[in-house]
Amino acid sequence: MKKNVLDVVQKPTLLVDLQKASANIDAMRAKAAQNNVILRPHFKTHQSARIAELYREAGITAITVSSVEMAQYFAAAGWGDILIAFPLNWREMDAVNALAGEIQLAVLVDSIESADFLTVKASHDMGVWIKVDTGLHRSGIWWQEMQSIEVLAKRIMQSSKLHLQGILTHTGQTYRANSPEAVKESAYASKQAMLEVKKYLSKQGLKDIQVSIGDTPGCRLLDDFNGADEIRPGNFIFFDLEQWQLGVCRPEEIAVAVACPIVSKNIARNELVIYGGAIHFAKETLPYKGRAIYGMVAGNPNTSFGVLQAECLLTTTTQEHGIIEVTPAVFSQYQVGDVIQLFPVHSCLTVQALGEYLEIHSGERISSMVTKRNGCS
Amino acid sequence: MKKNVLDVVQKPTLLVDLQKASANIDAMRAKAAQNNVILRPHFKTHQSARIAELYREAGITAITVSSVEMAQYFAAAGWGDILIAFPLNWREMDAVNALAGEIQLAVLVDSIESADFLTVKASHDMGVWIKVDTGLHRSGIWWQEMQSIEVLAKRIMQSSKLHLQGILTHTGQTYRANSPEAVKESAYASKQAMLEVKKYLSKQGLKDIQVSIGDTPGCRLLDDFNGADEIRPGNFIFFDLEQWQLGVCRPEEIAVAVACPIVSKNIARNELVIYGGAIHFAKETLPYKGRAIYGMVAGNPNTSFGVLQAECLLTTTTQEHGIIEVTPAVFSQYQVGDVIQLFPVHSCLTVQALGEYLEIHSGERISSMVTKRNGCS
Repeated sequence: MKKNVLDVVQKPTLLVDLQKASANIDAMRAKAAQNNVILRPHFKTHQSARIAELYREAGITAITVSSVEMAQYFAAAGWGDILIAFPLNWREMDAVNALAGEIQLAVLVDSIESADFLTVKASHDMGVWIKVDTGLHRSGIWWQEMQSIEVLAKRIMQSSKLHLQGILTHTGQTYRANSPEAVKESAYASKQAMLEVKKYLSKQGLKDIQVSIGDTPGCRLLDDFNGADEIRPGNFIFFDLEQWQLGVCRPEEIAVAVACPIVSKNIARNELVIYGGAIHFAKETLPYKGRAIYGMVAGNPNTSFGVLQAECLLTTTTQEHGIIEVTPAVFSQYQVGDVIQLFPVHSCLTVQALGEYLEIHSGERISSMVTKRNGCS
Repeated sequence: MKKNVLDVVQKPTLLVDLQKASANIDAMRAKAAQNNVILRPHFKTHQSARIAELYREAGITAITVSSVEMAQYFAAAGWGDILIAFPLNWREMDAVNALAGEIQLAVLVDSIESADFLTVKASHDMGVWIKVDTGLHRSGIWWQEMQSIEVLAKRIMQSSKLHLQGILTHTGQTYRANSPEAVKESAYASKQAMLEVKKYLSKQGLKDIQVSIGDTPGCRLLDDFNGADEIRPGNFIFFDLEQWQLGVCRPEEIAVAVACPIVSKNIARNELVIYGGAIHFAKETLPYKGRAIYGMVAGNPNTSFGVLQAECLLTTTTQEHGIIEVTPAVFSQYQVGDVIQLFPVHSCLTVQALGEYLEIHSGERISSMVTKRNGCS
């Protein structure tokens, strides 16, 4: 890192290392290619047209988003094959129709009501995926309720505008695993459940049902994707402390950090007080050594982030303040007015909170769809 | 509420009831006047020039903010007496100087290093407050270290540009209290500690030291502010579930809620899945009946928010999804495509996350300094 990149930091700033992000993309792209599945990365992690270009350079053409707003943003940035992997929001149907008139759009449903609504309201051709629950218990039809899935699939197929793509699951339960082995088992069980559903549907005469799976831990740790057609991980472009703790990535692969000015020091408690709090890191916690932490120091004062300081923990965040508990040795390395780099617990939420990136090699400021009004030009 | 106000909701939307907000302001203004203290409300809660006008109508002229950026925003909106109640961030000194040239600005320090930095760098007259820790243990000099406070005060007074205002504390420890009585005791102990410091400084020849205190629970529940010169509560304009649980407000006084479209229903679990998650509510949790919740249903389908449905809890939030566990009776009241209103755990963070308000009586859209780029005109 050029020394002067951190010199420009005046307030909590999201740092990104695009070289690491590109390497992370390449690794996942290679694994997808090897397994002959489509990589349809989830763009909710970075939310940035500029960073999306790294994917384009890697040959990616199909993407996943989590809101209609995000689909609009990336459609405007030239992405022509977008899946909104969120249960259809009836109240945005006009915007969905407008998008479907412009690009190859796919939406997600998990009920007859939504399928019927779509059938009545769809004004353009669009793809439809059925959301299946394989254990996360958030939304979707429980995978063993195969007859319900079949009924829904057939209902969708009755509409001339709706094109059934297949069944889709998000195996977010991998985040509850305690070990890399447990992640693999959970991801494997989810994929096998999806293949069972596909087999059942096939017996009922429903052919060409694609299987879409995806979550970063599973996609990273599964040995193969045998039977799946498509994977939709998102977080892997950046990773974060949660992924590191799950055993999914190494600290040097984490491609984002937050640079924060130090505004106070408390020698009695070995604490650094930073400008950087709940509204910058987001309030996601990681259980770590019996406590809940919000971040971890990500390197040394004068080098680019990449080395965990696993005894230097962001233990408190209020609206704008953060408190970092550090070792005496680290305490003496930083003075009020210095900048300290921290890895976030959950990079997706931290990106959403900060909205704009600073690239650490080039010094480039990179905007996203959540760049704040103050950043408007 | 006019039925059509909720009809316009397409995505997670921050609702505000300006009548309730005004009533909350009036109550605090009256209490401050009765106690002969200045009410310098903290604007980090609403972050909106439009909503700030409610304070102006109530005769308020002095305000508190938590960042230089926020000071810039409100200075541009015509506020001429602003305290940045956050330890001086050296890296924004140019902006601090620029503001001090425009308005009556005050800043906060808690170290000799920062006082010396200010002495060298200040290019305009500015007020300086000394941050004192009375039990929160975030930043500030511990109140019993009175000699350190004295040394710092005298150092500040040596500069011709710096004008020592007094001592300031944030009694955030009231949020850790288990009962309204405990809030009062904590706030009272904090105020008395500040008065001890003032008495000590007075004995050392430091006269005209003002005492600034403030946090919503304490300001609301303390019987009087005897000895203090200024109070700086912020959250009381809106309140939230945390304040309600502390015994600080009644549900009908909470002036904000989040309206979310329902996108899926799970009858087996009596769960409503909403478009509304971590990026809308913020990830602040409230301990409630042995669990951690993110929000609570705030009323009935067709009436304005204001009545707690204390058995209907937002128990899970991921990036865009939320899951509300409801009673069977409530489950049957809502259909996919409907909107449901929820009280947030912490209104300040929810305002920061959503950025724009919808006023429930007038239907007015109200922007804030964090209104997203998509909202830029």
